[in-house]
Amino acid sequence: MKDIYIHPTALVETEEIGEGTNIWAFAHVMEGARIGKNCNIGDHCFVESGAVVGNDATVKNGNMLWEGVTIEDGVFVGPHVFFTNDLYPRTRWLPQTRLRYAEDRTWLSPTLVKQGASLGAGAILLAGITIGDYAMVGLGAVVLKDVLPYVLVRGNPARASGWVCQCGKPLKFDHEITVCATCGLAFRQEDGSVRCLDGQKS
Amino acid sequence: MKDIYIHPTALVETEEIGEGTNIWAFAHVMEGARIGKNCNIGDHCFVESGAVVGNDATVKNGNMLWEGVTIEDGVFVGPHVFFTNDLYPRTRWLPQTRLRYAEDRTWLSPTLVKQGASLGAGAILLAGITIGDYAMVGLGAVVLKDVLPYVLVRGNPARASGWVCQCGKPLKFDHEITVCATCGLAFRQEDGSVRCLDGQKS
Amino acid sequence: MKDIYIHPTALVETEEIGEGTNIWAFAHVMEGARIGKNCNIGDHCFVESGAVVGNDATVKNGNMLWEGVTIEDGVFVGPHVFFTNDLYPRTRWLPQTRLRYAEDRTWLSPTLVKQGASLGAGAILLAGITIGDYAMVGLGAVVLKDVLPYVLVRGNPARASGWVCQCGKPLKFDHEITVCATCGLAFRQEDGSVRCLDGQKS
Repeated sequence: MKDIYIHPTALVETEEIGEGTNIWAFAHVMEGARIGKNCNIGDHCFVESGAVVGNDATVKNGNMLWEGVTIEDGVFVGPHVFFTNDLYPRTRWLPQTRLRYAEDRTWLSPTLVKQGASLGAGAILLAGITIGDYAMVGLGAVVLKDVLPYVLVRGNPARASGWVCQCGKPLKFDHEITVCATCGLAFRQEDGSVRCLDGQKS
Repeated sequence: MKDIYIHPTALVETEEIGEGTNIWAFAHVMEGARIGKNCNIGDHCFVESGAVVGNDATVKNGNMLWEGVTIEDGVFVGPHVFFTNDLYPRTRWLPQTRLRYAEDRTWLSPTLVKQGASLGAGAILLAGITIGDYAMVGLGAVVLKDVLPYVLVRGNPARASGWVCQCGKPLKFDHEITVCATCGLAFRQEDGSVRCLDGQKS
Repeated sequence: MKDIYIHPTALVETEEIGEGTNIWAFAHVMEGARIGKNCNIGDHCFVESGAVVGNDATVKNGNMLWEGVTIEDGVFVGPHVFFTNDLYPRTRWLPQTRLRYAEDRTWLSPTLVKQGASLGAGAILLAGITIGDYAMVGLGAVVLKDVLPYVLVRGNPARASGWVCQCGKPLKFDHEITVCATCGLAFRQEDGSVRCLDGQKS
């Protein structure tokens, strides 16, 4: 018997929700969506058929996770983040566009948010983007390119402006190796990318 | 008898909805709003009295169409686009502002989105703006000026960064006349504006 | 007996709502939230435990007021403004972050929006910010620093771009003292800050 909380006003049309997950008020999870264990899906969220959320994720209020969006384990999706899945969006009821949308889903560009990453409030992700492990997207950033693991990006368009630890705090690299002043994890920076030297993934 | 779908959780207070239109979950369409035929109004949308939507439009989730906003036929409104209708917004309960809001609607600046245009996710439109036929507003763009037909705009503030076809794909002009590589429509660029040479409107 | 309107679809779990206030459709006001008199809380809003709204405030649709957010009297919160309360957000279900979120609320950075200020549609406020009396935040502005009274800010990141009156209209300073052409209030500019010379609060 699964310990799932679904608010009385929420609409949940999928069976694929892991134990310990909460779905809050006025949220709508469609048939064919998949949500893992111990997640929070905030008020007024919409999770479309084909969207996937891993375990231990926080999806704050007002998010819309479309078909093609994959949220891995331990991700933080801030309030009202903007996901997209179509680089050339048009209404599909025009004669000029019906062919494109009638085909198999070649119009769809997927989005992948990898383990432990955070997306700040109101961040906007172009369709087709990958956000690396534990990366952090600043509030309101407009992300047009992939973001590497542990990178902080900010601005419109979003640009790298530092590194962050798995715990969320900034990392400083005076040398090739650094230790997070907050949580003690060790990292190595090499050729512009950062990896964790401790046991936790990547 | 009209073939309209209204989700059981939606609130629809207007009679003026065209056949073939769907109103999805937790949406609220007020009395005095008008919506045409074959439209999709997504979850959590709000359509205020005085807002107008034409035929064949797609209004993705979480949009708020205020009084003064007109969406023409075949428009795509991406998720969570921001419309506004007041250039100097204040609460109307202050003594300093009551006079302004008590008058006839001189405080209201209308917005017009013309036939076939697309507004990307999280785009923001200053009150008083017109978006031209088949124009495309990039995701997260902050639009402070009118946008001409077939123009793609991006950034904050939004600036022109190319041309798009009626089908949504980019147009390249090596000469005064070009043909869309995707759908074959022909266009002429003249004095900085583009028009379609085929039968479809403008 | 209090004259409060709560839409039948709204969820209101607090007793602390002042008379004359309206709570609209699909809004959710949690236990422990406080809202003053004569306010409008629009459709699809979320007001969390610990959020505070003063009197005569307009909170347009789709706003999320988190714990730590204080909205003073007479504030205008435009559609879908983004508030935040955590500078280093992570999901709290990761081993790496549990310690931080288990502690007392040291992770929480409060936001204060002072009397009569306006926040434009889609504006984004970094956690820990104060918006001064009657200041105006332009639509889509990303506010990373405090905003002084009567200042208009715009852009990403937001920068000062003028002054506004209590009534919302722009103020021009040709000299140290000016009078609003719309409503007649007088102001003095001194050392980069503006104050009102008339009886109404600062």
